[in-house]
Amino acid sequence: MLPKKVTIHEAGPREGFQFEPIVLPTRTKVEFIEALARTGLTDIEVASFVRPDLVPQMADAEELVAQLTPYPGVTYTASYLNVKGLERASKTGKLRLKHGLTISASETFSRRNQHADHAEAYLGLEKRADLFCSWGISGVSLGIAAAFGCNFEGDIPLANVLDWIRRLEHLALSKGLAPEEIRLLDTMGWANPRGITEAVEAIYTLWPGIPVSLHLHDTRGLGMANAYAALVLGVSDFDTAVAGLGGCPFGGHTGAAGNLATEDFVLMCHEMGIETGVDLDALIECANSAEILVGHALPGKVKVGGNLSRYR
Amino acid sequence: MLPKKVTIHEAGPREGFQFEPIVLPTRTKVEFIEALARTGLTDIEVASFVRPDLVPQMADAEELVAQLTPYPGVTYTASYLNVKGLERASKTGKLRLKHGLTISASETFSRRNQHADHAEAYLGLEKRADLFCSWGISGVSLGIAAAFGCNFEGDIPLANVLDWIRRLEHLALSKGLAPEEIRLLDTMGWANPRGITEAVEAIYTLWPGIPVSLHLHDTRGLGMANAYAALVLGVSDFDTAVAGLGGCPFGGHTGAAGNLATEDFVLMCHEMGIETGVDLDALIECANSAEILVGHALPGKVKVGGNLSRYR
Repeated sequence: MLPKKVTIHEAGPREGFQFEPIVLPTRTKVEFIEALARTGLTDIEVASFVRPDLVPQMADAEELVAQLTPYPGVTYTASYLNVKGLERASKTGKLRLKHGLTISASETFSRRNQHADHAEAYLGLEKRADLFCSWGISGVSLGIAAAFGCNFEGDIPLANVLDWIRRLEHLALSKGLAPEEIRLLDTMGWANPRGITEAVEAIYTLWPGIPVSLHLHDTRGLGMANAYAALVLGVSDFDTAVAGLGGCPFGGHTGAAGNLATEDFVLMCHEMGIETGVDLDALIECANSAEILVGHALPGKVKVGGNLSRYR
Repeated sequence: MLPKKVTIHEAGPREGFQFEPIVLPTRTKVEFIEALARTGLTDIEVASFVRPDLVPQMADAEELVAQLTPYPGVTYTASYLNVKGLERASKTGKLRLKHGLTISASETFSRRNQHADHAEAYLGLEKRADLFCSWGISGVSLGIAAAFGCNFEGDIPLANVLDWIRRLEHLALSKGLAPEEIRLLDTMGWANPRGITEAVEAIYTLWPGIPVSLHLHDTRGLGMANAYAALVLGVSDFDTAVAGLGGCPFGGHTGAAGNLATEDFVLMCHEMGIETGVDLDALIECANSAEILVGHALPGKVKVGGNLSRYR
């Protein structure tokens, strides 16, 4: 059941440089992103359009996007938490915006990350959906953050996640938007392979034909096992971050928080005969650069253990 | 197909303290091992009976075993590479010796690790089998080191591994020893979940009823995914090392070499409803101690990310 090919959304420049305390110069980030674009990665999340007073690392989002050189076959994306951020991102004119309706299954995390309880967050999604409609968008992804558990609320039952997907689906359909993808985010690293399997199978049963994508963190060492559990079910769409950068600044983490490391995931895919389109050696160089930029060791393993092709 | 319960062989004190350049005082190692014994781990590999001139970290093997306090329900084991080491380990009278016939699928690694080519290594196993017979042992495990690949020889085809298992089986049976377990060691971190699946399924088909055990390294970040792939097939016997200590000193590693981290594996098992008998919080304390002992960060994740029970 393994897919022949996976699509990787590289989240390192956005999620990583947002989590790290250091504020990197815009030019440095641009060069790093363009190096990633030369590895064969086709989808790179470059910035977050959020409040500069709360996330100063992302205060240069507009300037950064303005400086980016377009690469053939490479799409730059960005994240945003509300309509204002979405409008800022849209105005750059250089980003492929993800048309997503995403809510946190944990209300406490929603308050901390978006300053919105569930009712306010839902209202925000209605406004966002209206904006998508005014742009002539026809399809959206439905996303659930903290889909497996939360450092503030503990375990998140699968039934709650499925309920939220139903509500987002209802919202989308009521605005004439077709659900095109269901996205589960393990924002704080609570998932395990059994939980991944149960969630993906339930979604396949309830929403047949709609692909699932996963945003995984390796906070407790289970990121790669979670990815494998999903691959076995045919999931072929993953967010990862080079060198294992990343973590949500408002997730209440004690330290380890990074996303699944892109280069380790690419190695696993290649070793199992799954195409990624990525030049692993070039990506390992980017992972090494990332460590230099943030000034400390990052969790990715292949950059230390070595690409297997070196030994073949 | 997940097992209800797994057996964990804690390899940290042997494999970890052998790989680290620092030579720890015997008393320090004894205290660390006894702390592990109090976590609920039932099988702890405490030392390696190898040449003290080549592995000075293990020169105190006899003294260390002499100082160990027995704990109810806990078995101390040791490793050895030849008949001389086996006899030294046996003389301590305090170890449960693994009755194993293990060969490296890579001849280059065999030369580097055991100073024996395949013919010499096989002869050594014949002598070892004779010794087992003289002790009245009736069953043995058959082990293949470098079973998935080798930093010196590259990929190891599954057919070669199966051939070696057949030859070891023949050797065992010719001495009247029953094969009781087949052990695959991913000594240099070459395995991927697909390869694990293919190997375990082939062994189940060719040797039905004989359990498989795995010794996994996380050199390239795939250790946990490999463990999960095996759990799904019902494999319930794993070597791991607290904090992700470990690595073979003669494996030609570039840096990352540790075993699968015991505490991360225990977390995954518990989260999926698989019993380990281990107190995870006590084990995380041991992982933190291990870092202090070796004087640098070790790769285990849960010790940084935090046990999930803290947040429930």
